[in-house]
Amino acid sequence: MANSKYEYVKSFELQDNLLPQTWIVLRIDGCHFHKFSQIHNFEKPNDEHALQLLNECATDMLEEFPDIIFAYGMSDEYSFVIKKSSTFHQRRASKIVSLVVSFFSSTYVMKWHKFFPHKELQYPPSFDGRVVCYPSTSILRDYLAWRQVDCHINNQYNTCFWMLVKSGKSATEAQNILKGTQTQEKNELLFQQFGINYNTLPAVFRKGSCIFKEEVEEVVKCTEAGDPIKRRRRKIVVQHCDIIGKNLWDEHPYLLSDK
Amino acid sequence: MANSKYEYVKSFELQDNLLPQTWIVLRIDGCHFHKFSQIHNFEKPNDEHALQLLNECATDMLEEFPDIIFAYGMSDEYSFVIKKSSTFHQRRASKIVSLVVSFFSSTYVMKWHKFFPHKELQYPPSFDGRVVCYPSTSILRDYLAWRQVDCHINNQYNTCFWMLVKSGKSATEAQNILKGTQTQEKNELLFQQFGINYNTLPAVFRKGSCIFKEEVEEVVKCTEAGDPIKRRRRKIVVQHCDIIGKNLWDEHPYLLSDK
Amino acid sequence: MANSKYEYVKSFELQDNLLPQTWIVLRIDGCHFHKFSQIHNFEKPNDEHALQLLNECATDMLEEFPDIIFAYGMSDEYSFVIKKSSTFHQRRASKIVSLVVSFFSSTYVMKWHKFFPHKELQYPPSFDGRVVCYPSTSILRDYLAWRQVDCHINNQYNTCFWMLVKSGKSATEAQNILKGTQTQEKNELLFQQFGINYNTLPAVFRKGSCIFKEEVEEVVKCTEAGDPIKRRRRKIVVQHCDIIGKNLWDEHPYLLSDK
Amino acid sequence: MANSKYEYVKSFELQDNLLPQTWIVLRIDGCHFHKFSQIHNFEKPNDEHALQLLNECATDMLEEFPDIIFAYGMSDEYSFVIKKSSTFHQRRASKIVSLVVSFFSSTYVMKWHKFFPHKELQYPPSFDGRVVCYPSTSILRDYLAWRQVDCHINNQYNTCFWMLVKSGKSATEAQNILKGTQTQEKNELLFQQFGINYNTLPAVFRKGSCIFKEEVEEVVKCTEAGDPIKRRRRKIVVQHCDIIGKNLWDEHPYLLSDK
Repeated sequence: MANSKYEYVKSFELQDNLLPQTWIVLRIDGCHFHKFSQIHNFEKPNDEHALQLLNECATDMLEEFPDIIFAYGMSDEYSFVIKKSSTFHQRRASKIVSLVVSFFSSTYVMKWHKFFPHKELQYPPSFDGRVVCYPSTSILRDYLAWRQVDCHINNQYNTCFWMLVKSGKSATEAQNILKGTQTQEKNELLFQQFGINYNTLPAVFRKGSCIFKEEVEEVVKCTEAGDPIKRRRRKIVVQHCDIIGKNLWDEHPYLLSDK
Repeated sequence: MANSKYEYVKSFELQDNLLPQTWIVLRIDGCHFHKFSQIHNFEKPNDEHALQLLNECATDMLEEFPDIIFAYGMSDEYSFVIKKSSTFHQRRASKIVSLVVSFFSSTYVMKWHKFFPHKELQYPPSFDGRVVCYPSTSILRDYLAWRQVDCHINNQYNTCFWMLVKSGKSATEAQNILKGTQTQEKNELLFQQFGINYNTLPAVFRKGSCIFKEEVEEVVKCTEAGDPIKRRRRKIVVQHCDIIGKNLWDEHPYLLSDK
Repeated sequence: MANSKYEYVKSFELQDNLLPQTWIVLRIDGCHFHKFSQIHNFEKPNDEHALQLLNECATDMLEEFPDIIFAYGMSDEYSFVIKKSSTFHQRRASKIVSLVVSFFSSTYVMKWHKFFPHKELQYPPSFDGRVVCYPSTSILRDYLAWRQVDCHINNQYNTCFWMLVKSGKSATEAQNILKGTQTQEKNELLFQQFGINYNTLPAVFRKGSCIFKEEVEEVVKCTEAGDPIKRRRRKIVVQHCDIIGKNLWDEHPYLLSDK
Repeated sequence: MANSKYEYVKSFELQDNLLPQTWIVLRIDGCHFHKFSQIHNFEKPNDEHALQLLNECATDMLEEFPDIIFAYGMSDEYSFVIKKSSTFHQRRASKIVSLVVSFFSSTYVMKWHKFFPHKELQYPPSFDGRVVCYPSTSILRDYLAWRQVDCHINNQYNTCFWMLVKSGKSATEAQNILKGTQTQEKNELLFQQFGINYNTLPAVFRKGSCIFKEEVEEVVKCTEAGDPIKRRRRKIVVQHCDIIGKNLWDEHPYLLSDK
């Protein structure tokens, strides 16, 4: 039976290829994760296990999709940077978004028990995704800086907010106390009222998480004469470092070299 | 700390809204499911439990996304029809694709054990997704017909192929026997060599699965005089019926009425 | 000499095909025509010759592009309706927009002297263009109604404004008098202060211009017996009629039948 | 009278903004110019006046649209390079394409008589247009090189073809003689059969035309002491130089500096 009579419906599929030779950033966001974190009793303002779960999912992404060369995550969002020269699925936006989000979602559910062995997953979590193209490395770095500044702003605010709430304030009172305060004032509030030095809090909360392939030199085995035989390989690492300045990029020049 | 210095990067997000007042079809496909079905020992040509799992995921989709008014699935793919008047996420393609695929993937993993209690999920499954707009109901019905004709063609071929293989032929021999055969010849092959009447095989294999909300009248309670108090409500049903002809649509006119 | 080394640059051309089986409306607008009409001393509020020139250009469009089945113009804008089934240049948006706008612009300059024999064209006029798809005939008719309502609102306002200015008011005074007035009040102002019955002004000003192919029956020649031999053909006509109600469409059912 | 009832039709206009911070190339092509050049008796293989007319239109484009920083033309096509940082009409593709093509077309018709004082324009010429974004300067230069290589290939072929035809061959004979010949062979054919040294033909034919703003230093006036007062300004120039190598770009570094 020929299917040709109906096949014309394929002509309604419009193309959505992304501009070649641009960095593709795919950002996923937890959908209604405010409610999700309440129902699953996530610790406030940061739940270490929830962050570790996200980081492990993101690490698996770099294994699964070799064209992802960098990932940056914080709170319930993750940005994946796909190399400029990638031709993954002919750079079709919907293919890329759907495959990445699908794999991330499946992995999140599969790994849940590893990080929450005593908590049942109550319902299927979902993530939305979007793709953006950045034509130059300098704009890409500004994108990453934008996310890390946001991480800082949100985390500092949330740390203050939850300390106030835990100390007995209502949510509204805490919001009013924080309204209009600057970075420095928030740091002082934490220090004077709660004895917390913000800059000594765990870097994973303050800086978010960067995942990338680090070039390392390994001893594979030794020759009969006892000399080590080494090889260079790339190993996926998770770090909680600054990505706004140039240090990370200077130390790992291959990351943004698109090779 | 103001984030404005970097916020310009948001201007690189281009809009991808879908044309209003058109039927949106979102089709998801299992990614590398040939390998996935081998590794998980799915029965050939059709694995009932795998199909039931997909159907349950799709049923949950209609609960989760009220704008989905119909779903049709077969093999490892599912098409979801979103109503013409939907303004779900302002009809942004990447939002819609990612959320639907994400929820489907999470659900698939969460429900795996219900359908395969004795099989471990070996790795995270993933699905790709795409959206297509259809401007009229008649073209939408042609789309659905296209998928059901495909279901028939594939299933009849696969049924023959696997019967031949199970009877001792090699894959290549089976392919050669089937090359160029028509519907009628395949039916005869099944009947004469294997005593199988194709049309009596389970409808779920031959027709695929349709999921929609059926209007039903229910007795809520009875009055003191014993008269039933009824109300109409919509109940999600799974059927394996013909969607090419007009019967289904005539019997359920509200399905495509976009209300 | 092979050109292949550089031909990869073609891969940066992204596709912009419009959804099949939808009405395509291409609207062009005079660019900075406020200034253009001043420099060329167009009569206010309406210059008959300028409108006739636009109408003749639009008429030539229907000759040149057979897929245009209707055009509606007013002031310095024109909307062209391309039939749903059109496959003109594979429905590529930029091809369609550029060709239509280019032909219109060339024609405008070429025909200028026919309508302004004693005025020199001072500089090249330009028009911008855009395409919009409408999935149903009823929405297409709402689009056309939208433009004709706009024509009425603008023309009534401009008629009042210029009568006030010609009677000695400054532009600001005229604007203040008209601020917040309704249709009925404007009609009364025209009648009481200037003795003008708005509804008797030329229809081309009040209703704009519709251009379409009318089916007519013509006597081609006569038989020897003196009986007329007729044939039906389509003849391009310009009318200034209502397009909001259903009369025009009922009388010319073939217009929106997409045949 | 409110227009709100119909204004919903505006929501069908989809956005088509081009990616920020990329070079926009807008290429226009004469539509059916083979026929146009025959009807207007253009000289073969190159008509100097027709090329001069196109060059003057393109020069006017650089005056009219300050964001165009370079133009390259040959045969009946012209490429306009819009600077990376341009926000002209919010980088909306259809606005940019339509305005540029419209102005070019109007100018072409208006200037026709300056270049063809004794030839009547027979019908309105039209041009199609398209936009492509290039993310880096190096790819932009490859685009320009692609066009100039094409200019060379086409012009050399056409020069041979028309010399053969003018010497008495039929079109088919000329095509057969040229089939499969390389650059060197074509040069030898021209030299041996017609005494033509290809490289001494006018550069406008062989290299096409480049239009850009050259920085020049001008003496504005002199001081009382007789010292010249100079100022730097940019002057639009037309050149027929090589754009594949780096000389032009090295000598005019501001061209691609996006300032």
